Amino acid sequence: MSDKMKATVQAYLDNFNTQNAEEITALFADNATVEDPIGTPIKKGKEEILAFYKMAVKNGATLSQQGQTRIASNMAAFAFEVTVGGAGMTDVDTDIEVELPPGSMTIHVIDTFAFDDDGKISEMRAFWGPGNIKQH
Amino acid sequence: MSDKMKATVQAYLDNFNTQNAEEITALFADNATVEDPIGTPIKKGKEEILAFYKMAVKNGATLSQQGQTRIASNMAAFAFEVTVGGAGMTDVDTDIEVELPPGSMTIHVIDTFAFDDDGKISEMRAFWGPGNIKQH
Repeated sequence: MSDKMKATVQAYLDNFNTQNAEEITALFADNATVEDPIGTPIKKGKEEILAFYKMAVKNGATLSQQGQTRIASNMAAFAFEVTVGGAGMTDVDTDIEVELPPGSMTIHVIDTFAFDDDGKISEMRAFWGPGNIKQH
Repeated sequence: MSDKMKATVQAYLDNFNTQNAEEITALFADNATVEDPIGTPIKKGKEEILAFYKMAVKNGATLSQQGQTRIASNMAAFAFEVTVGGAGMTDVDTDIEVELPPGSMTIHVIDTFAFDDDGKISEMRAFWGPGNIKQH
């Protein structure tokens, strides 16, 4: 189970880096929740989660893991750096173009996953805030 | 509030590295909970938390932070490496000597803190397991 959780974290990062929102969503349980970042409205269920990741991968961000994936009981935590280029971002649902500032941006994030008995992600929470964003 | 949470994480690490269990405990709210690692019995309240940290600092472990403290809403997450030397460990409550293996050991951990309105830690959870321990 520990190895499966670790592999799921790796699959999450890999699928993000290939902009595959469907494959990311397939890692989640049917009634899973996503809170990214903590304090923002929680997405619940596959439909909302797919919509969220479709938008998230659209800006071509790359995730680079920092250090080991920590596994405790049915949970995982991992640190990573998000690098976003200077390209414009499109909201896939509304087709509204969001202009990001020129140049690139890095965000330092820690995610925690809880897993259900089938090894699917039942809860995802992302820890990051304004102090973790750096414009280049 | 974000700066205060960041400073509390730093104080936690500093007080751990000077083996000051009382100062660590002072960072917590009266009814705070500590789950270290996740899946083990939860310590609740200052008395249990103090006893836990007295034992935790007794083996002279040093904590070395890896990367930025992530702050989101009322929560913080941070990654660190714990280095434990080869010395014996004493359980302060029972005076039972626990013999650690010779040589040193490193454990890779991610902690999450939730904070109350006074900036005290109301919940601590530690993410680490067997796969994050390395004997030297």
